[in-house]
Amino acid sequence: MSKDEHKLPLSKRKESIIFMMILFAFQVFMVVLFSVWVRYSKNEVNYSTLTPEQLQELEATGGVVQEEVTNIYGYFRDINIMIFFGFGFLMTFLRRYGYSALGYTFIISALVAQWSVLIYGFFETVDHKNDHGGDYASTFEMSQTVLLQGLFCAGAVMISYGAVLGRVTPLQMLVVGIFEPIFYFLNMFIGEMNLEAIDVGGGMYIHLFGSVFGLTIAWFLTDKKSKDCEDNSPSYTGDYFAMAGTLFLWMMWPSFNAAIAPLGEPQFRAIANTFLSLTASTIATFIVTRLFGHLGHKIDMVHVQNSSLAGGVVQGCLAHMNINPGGAIGMGFLAGVISVIGYLFISPFLQRRFNIQDTCGIHNLHFMPGFIGSIAACIAAWKGLNDRSLYNPIEFNQIFRAGEDQARNNAAATFISIGIAIAGGLFVGMILKALKKVGGLKAKQYYQDSAFWHVPIDYPKDVEYVVEQNNLPMPTTDNGDNVVGGGVEMKKHNNNNNKKENGYRRDLIRLLETLVRNEQSTDSSYSDSDSSDEEEKERRIRKLAKKSYRRSKKSHSEHQPQHQPEESTFNNNNNNNNNNATAETTDNGGSSTNSPTSKV
Amino acid sequence: MSKDEHKLPLSKRKESIIFMMILFAFQVFMVVLFSVWVRYSKNEVNYSTLTPEQLQELEATGGVVQEEVTNIYGYFRDINIMIFFGFGFLMTFLRRYGYSALGYTFIISALVAQWSVLIYGFFETVDHKNDHGGDYASTFEMSQTVLLQGLFCAGAVMISYGAVLGRVTPLQMLVVGIFEPIFYFLNMFIGEMNLEAIDVGGGMYIHLFGSVFGLTIAWFLTDKKSKDCEDNSPSYTGDYFAMAGTLFLWMMWPSFNAAIAPLGEPQFRAIANTFLSLTASTIATFIVTRLFGHLGHKIDMVHVQNSSLAGGVVQGCLAHMNINPGGAIGMGFLAGVISVIGYLFISPFLQRRFNIQDTCGIHNLHFMPGFIGSIAACIAAWKGLNDRSLYNPIEFNQIFRAGEDQARNNAAATFISIGIAIAGGLFVGMILKALKKVGGLKAKQYYQDSAFWHVPIDYPKDVEYVVEQNNLPMPTTDNGDNVVGGGVEMKKHNNNNNKKENGYRRDLIRLLETLVRNEQSTDSSYSDSDSSDEEEKERRIRKLAKKSYRRSKKSHSEHQPQHQPEESTFNNNNNNNNNNATAETTDNGGSSTNSPTSKV
Amino acid sequence: MSKDEHKLPLSKRKESIIFMMILFAFQVFMVVLFSVWVRYSKNEVNYSTLTPEQLQELEATGGVVQEEVTNIYGYFRDINIMIFFGFGFLMTFLRRYGYSALGYTFIISALVAQWSVLIYGFFETVDHKNDHGGDYASTFEMSQTVLLQGLFCAGAVMISYGAVLGRVTPLQMLVVGIFEPIFYFLNMFIGEMNLEAIDVGGGMYIHLFGSVFGLTIAWFLTDKKSKDCEDNSPSYTGDYFAMAGTLFLWMMWPSFNAAIAPLGEPQFRAIANTFLSLTASTIATFIVTRLFGHLGHKIDMVHVQNSSLAGGVVQGCLAHMNINPGGAIGMGFLAGVISVIGYLFISPFLQRRFNIQDTCGIHNLHFMPGFIGSIAACIAAWKGLNDRSLYNPIEFNQIFRAGEDQARNNAAATFISIGIAIAGGLFVGMILKALKKVGGLKAKQYYQDSAFWHVPIDYPKDVEYVVEQNNLPMPTTDNGDNVVGGGVEMKKHNNNNNKKENGYRRDLIRLLETLVRNEQSTDSSYSDSDSSDEEEKERRIRKLAKKSYRRSKKSHSEHQPQHQPEESTFNNNNNNNNNNATAETTDNGGSSTNSPTSKV
Repeated sequence: MSKDEHKLPLSKRKESIIFMMILFAFQVFMVVLFSVWVRYSKNEVNYSTLTPEQLQELEATGGVVQEEVTNIYGYFRDINIMIFFGFGFLMTFLRRYGYSALGYTFIISALVAQWSVLIYGFFETVDHKNDHGGDYASTFEMSQTVLLQGLFCAGAVMISYGAVLGRVTPLQMLVVGIFEPIFYFLNMFIGEMNLEAIDVGGGMYIHLFGSVFGLTIAWFLTDKKSKDCEDNSPSYTGDYFAMAGTLFLWMMWPSFNAAIAPLGEPQFRAIANTFLSLTASTIATFIVTRLFGHLGHKIDMVHVQNSSLAGGVVQGCLAHMNINPGGAIGMGFLAGVISVIGYLFISPFLQRRFNIQDTCGIHNLHFMPGFIGSIAACIAAWKGLNDRSLYNPIEFNQIFRAGEDQARNNAAATFISIGIAIAGGLFVGMILKALKKVGGLKAKQYYQDSAFWHVPIDYPKDVEYVVEQNNLPMPTTDNGDNVVGGGVEMKKHNNNNNKKENGYRRDLIRLLETLVRNEQSTDSSYSDSDSSDEEEKERRIRKLAKKSYRRSKKSHSEHQPQHQPEESTFNNNNNNNNNNATAETTDNGGSSTNSPTSKV
Repeated sequence: MSKDEHKLPLSKRKESIIFMMILFAFQVFMVVLFSVWVRYSKNEVNYSTLTPEQLQELEATGGVVQEEVTNIYGYFRDINIMIFFGFGFLMTFLRRYGYSALGYTFIISALVAQWSVLIYGFFETVDHKNDHGGDYASTFEMSQTVLLQGLFCAGAVMISYGAVLGRVTPLQMLVVGIFEPIFYFLNMFIGEMNLEAIDVGGGMYIHLFGSVFGLTIAWFLTDKKSKDCEDNSPSYTGDYFAMAGTLFLWMMWPSFNAAIAPLGEPQFRAIANTFLSLTASTIATFIVTRLFGHLGHKIDMVHVQNSSLAGGVVQGCLAHMNINPGGAIGMGFLAGVISVIGYLFISPFLQRRFNIQDTCGIHNLHFMPGFIGSIAACIAAWKGLNDRSLYNPIEFNQIFRAGEDQARNNAAATFISIGIAIAGGLFVGMILKALKKVGGLKAKQYYQDSAFWHVPIDYPKDVEYVVEQNNLPMPTTDNGDNVVGGGVEMKKHNNNNNKKENGYRRDLIRLLETLVRNEQSTDSSYSDSDSSDEEEKERRIRKLAKKSYRRSKKSHSEHQPQHQPEESTFNNNNNNNNNNATAETTDNGGSSTNSPTSKV
Repeated sequence: MSKDEHKLPLSKRKESIIFMMILFAFQVFMVVLFSVWVRYSKNEVNYSTLTPEQLQELEATGGVVQEEVTNIYGYFRDINIMIFFGFGFLMTFLRRYGYSALGYTFIISALVAQWSVLIYGFFETVDHKNDHGGDYASTFEMSQTVLLQGLFCAGAVMISYGAVLGRVTPLQMLVVGIFEPIFYFLNMFIGEMNLEAIDVGGGMYIHLFGSVFGLTIAWFLTDKKSKDCEDNSPSYTGDYFAMAGTLFLWMMWPSFNAAIAPLGEPQFRAIANTFLSLTASTIATFIVTRLFGHLGHKIDMVHVQNSSLAGGVVQGCLAHMNINPGGAIGMGFLAGVISVIGYLFISPFLQRRFNIQDTCGIHNLHFMPGFIGSIAACIAAWKGLNDRSLYNPIEFNQIFRAGEDQARNNAAATFISIGIAIAGGLFVGMILKALKKVGGLKAKQYYQDSAFWHVPIDYPKDVEYVVEQNNLPMPTTDNGDNVVGGGVEMKKHNNNNNKKENGYRRDLIRLLETLVRNEQSTDSSYSDSDSSDEEEKERRIRKLAKKSYRRSKKSHSEHQPQHQPEESTFNNNNNNNNNNATAETTDNGGSSTNSPTSKV
């Protein structure tokens, strides 16, 4: 194979060059802004006026900068794990898209985390001037919390990525990573500064915004070919990795919701409510996946990986509020139930009717639970305003920043989040659509690492090859109802041997058929069989094989050939070899047939 | 394949329905109790009497609630990782049971974490009334520490799960998850409140209790079929995942033992002793696994994954005590040695003589090191009582709560833990045995995800299939001594071609045999061979193939057929294809043959 | 297979016995030293003179011991994750070396962490006596920070391990683990105590020292056979695991650089600079890997896994300094660019010209970015000395411990680190070379777990087998320039059927050839073909098979045989079976061919 054959085709190379140029230019642009405008946060102290004791005290404690590090860095680290490891690995379930899932999560989240400091700084500078008048500040002080805001924003972008997973080029994701943060912080500043809405864990700003944005751009990136793709299906090992992602998201979620909660009771409630809610959504997931499980109450890994997290999403807005521990559990349970139902029934509907293919089912994990949580926050705010005994005076002021308007403002922020997300999604979606002409993915390249990555020799084979190699029936879908979460519409099982058999085995069989026919001229017991069906032919070969085997066996032991056919026992024996793991349930064959279609 | 074929069989569906009903009813029961009885912990402050300065101070610090979050939440998060990720992935070593290992760990631990709050609250309420008289409190205040207790309890349940891994239905695990916490907290409150025993990291309450409980229920769930199961063996990729579980358990273990240690020196000693002890047990593991390694000093992954953790278990009771850093290392080393010996010799013995099959070897990782640690705590307590200089006055009062009775009380708590665990295990074990009638696992379903989970097309094939596909010798056990940790008694290598060859290849071979025989009539060199052995027959086919190959080769180059047999070179050449990775050691074939039998 | 065959060969058993003896003796030696000499750090308080209020206060806060735990333990835990999980999994990319990568990381790092306490204690005792005179202290107080120093040292040893990954025996690694820490702490104490150099995150002491040491010993362990090894190539699943290692290193790196930074602004800057620098090196990696990507702008996983971390290394010395956020990003970007270029061009050069095979490319990830960072620290020190406004008085004294000599001392420490690393590497390398005689690895055992580990039945097959089974072209290297990071010089594709076909398939084909020839006597259409080429022969079989297939098909439907050859369609059909995933790019075949050669 010559060196040229390894090259990407022309359109892909164009994509690569534009990707590199934009990314490099953007990094230069950011470096310049960081250099001239961003400064480290520092202790505002006049050192010359301090007494030696005060200096010693400051050295020992580190001042307010250290206080913020102590309070925030632990959460920052946990959320770092959620964004880069959690989201990255959650998306590795696809059978040959793990490099891309991990790699694009890595580069785009890193980009967003850096870029967010500048956008956040911009909005904060504008907001500060609006509130306090005077000139714009000539520098922006980057604190630990600002870095944390960058991770939150990366979370929203990763949610959006989940909807279009497998259908985007690096260049398209780069565009998403550059533009989505702008809309994200615009929305956040409206909600946070103007409306002073309650949203401690980003139920609106992150989950609702990110999912609506993602579903909108998914609408631009859904076509007939992407829906038909067999590689939009899970692998066994991939599901282990995806569970690692799920578990780290699940375990770190209390940190996500508590990170910027006011100290004291609100922060503890954020941890407790999120944790209890997550346990409840996990319980709900296992109940509903078995109840509606389309293959007879079996558990579906896609639900376990995703819906068990719904309890964290649903607490996004109000985790720190006094909603009663029972309320937290109830909300988590409800979110889990609705999320599984979404995977089973709503995602296929969205795909059929609205042409929105949602690879990871972000509609079910982020939109629905996020929306429920946002509405619940309005209700909790209304309740808190009517029953002041629920909160002590300190935390009431911290939480109810909008005072009597709190419930109304929260409702407004909810719908503004949806609105800005749709507007931003339409804008970015149109760019993405235009970029399809620059190395966009073709029918056979969806959900495949090999389109943009070097892959090693054990890169998984395509589904048809695996199916035929292992004598599995081809995966099918019965009626579309089983197709969940942007699932695949697998090609119907093809009886044609040309497809079902691989080249080598087919050739051997054909050759043997010829030889068998020659044999038959000396074996009258088969002269009357002339069925035209391929399978019948194969059956005859096996029969002959069996007969010849028995003949040879007998001829060695008894020196007497036997000719009677024992069709049934032979076939049983043969089936046993492929299905001997499926004693009672026929599960190995049965479930492996359909499970890919049940995957997001 | 029609839709009905995907359904679970009737008994499995009954299991599913009962599972769902119990889990749903239990969640409703818990939601009600949480709603009416559980409240968030809060700062006990009369806000109306505070000065503005005090209010500001309280706002800045968050009060005692925040203090507990600051002190405990970091440990809570680490232990969260241990329970859900650590235990879950540690159990993924089985070749096709990873969905179940991760999934049941997930749902049962989530359930236990929620359920524990209520049981803990019950016992604390009773205990408080016993100590202080008066009425029962109408509500229970849930703090960060209470949530942590739920994770500790989930740890005990997961240890028990390890013993029966692969042999339980979801319904059976649900029953364990509901009942075991009751016995767990009963035991813990007797030890903690009545005896005031020393057990900072749950050496008795978690490891000893959990392992004895698990071994007891394992006794009910061991039968001939489960012992014979070929799928009770590891996979190469599964061992990577299991190492991820091991490493996170190992790395977080200092947090586990230090989480509720008194502040100051005891907490530091808990971290230091646990860490040093873990390094020593890791060193011991590598020494002993090579020393006793049954395949000639090779390292056994099962020991590395498990025995290296023994140093954490052995410090469970007394990590925070002044046992000298050398003492910590010595204890860890001893625990590591004994744990590997347990895997090599004691687990097989337990299985043979006491019919207790212990899939993960919890006897070796949790029971023995836990028991050693419990006894060591008695000795350390006795030594501390006799040499007051070992502890400063503050920590002496914190640790030696039972005063002069400390050593005696600790001994009592050790045996009470064992007793309650056996009683609870017998009670729960009988229920589990009864539940075998409700969709219990049949012979061919042990250690397999496919019994209750959708599995994708790359779900691993059964062992026989893999062995024959790769021309490997069938795994065997020599004499049973090599079977470790509830290991498998692999079926003896079956020479019968009916089993060794899969259907398709067998058919081809048989057909070719027929053809060969026809050939032979024109080839006198083989007319005298009439060996009746199957292998001899295959050898003849190969010989003929080689001859015909050489003939055709020569006929093309020299137009002269050659007939001399070159048996030896041909066979070498053939072997080389399968074994060319095994230059000096024949390790690829050799070790792959036996390693499954050496796995827990 | 008899029991004896499972034994390791004699030389390996000798290795095993010596390994066990040294490790056991060394553990005994350490236990004794720990017992008599090491004590827990404690609060230096005279309890008898404290008032009850002071006692209560001390009980509530835990004193300075607790303060250190609070400040350090969170970082300790993160760095624990980096060493054991991060480094361990980063090295699992090799297709059949994961047990060893994880296992040796585990045992050697555990050993080093324990051993370091003693060496650190020795140097600190000597240093203390030199500074303060008097007698040597009779005991050494082990604090949380001392344990952390052990992890740092383990990091340096793991970096060195990266260079020789796959080419060392456990015994050789044990020797490295025992001796390298001595040189490490010698160097660190010269730099830290004598020169008072700036190196907050071990840019010199860990990265520079560890990489130079590693490259030096790699020089002793590189030979022709190790360079030729096909198993020095990645696997698809292995790359997922390696990404898990990469991500945890990436996410925890801010903790690595901030752990021992002075409280307050320096600690925050260490976090912020490291994080921003990492985002920039990630961006740089994706740009340069596409720019220079030898297969037409495709992304190379080895660069993503490694070069994205260069931003953490480059900040090693000066993360806590006031280098401007833009400066941090610029440094990270530069480090990322240079690291990828190193993988592409410098590592192959080192291997060719200097005979240094560097399996993980530590030269590119640790040496070059570490050296840049060390020089940058000199410049930053020089700048800080000339512009005192960059630092407040407190932090200036904390950072510029050497005063006016700071820049000069840092430069000295840089080169002393390199010097001691080379000296230590030469000393240890000579021992390693001598130990090759004791069970050292032979040609076919490099990069293979099976040399020293039990492996299960799904242990990956050798490359040739995988290639032939999947009809892939044999991996080749074009001209050596593509070989990166100690990469492999894959054997050229061997057309000889003896090698390409496995025994069974070859036999079948040969037999069929014979039969075909017999057939031909009755089939005149092939009598004129006598090409001597093997491939031509196979083509003829296929042709015949196709013909016979068509004949039989026609004979069933039309009862009329057809004989015309339809070569082209048949071949297309056949190719389609193996390549139908490669619509536009031929990527499945093409990239899988070369990617192993691009792997470190």
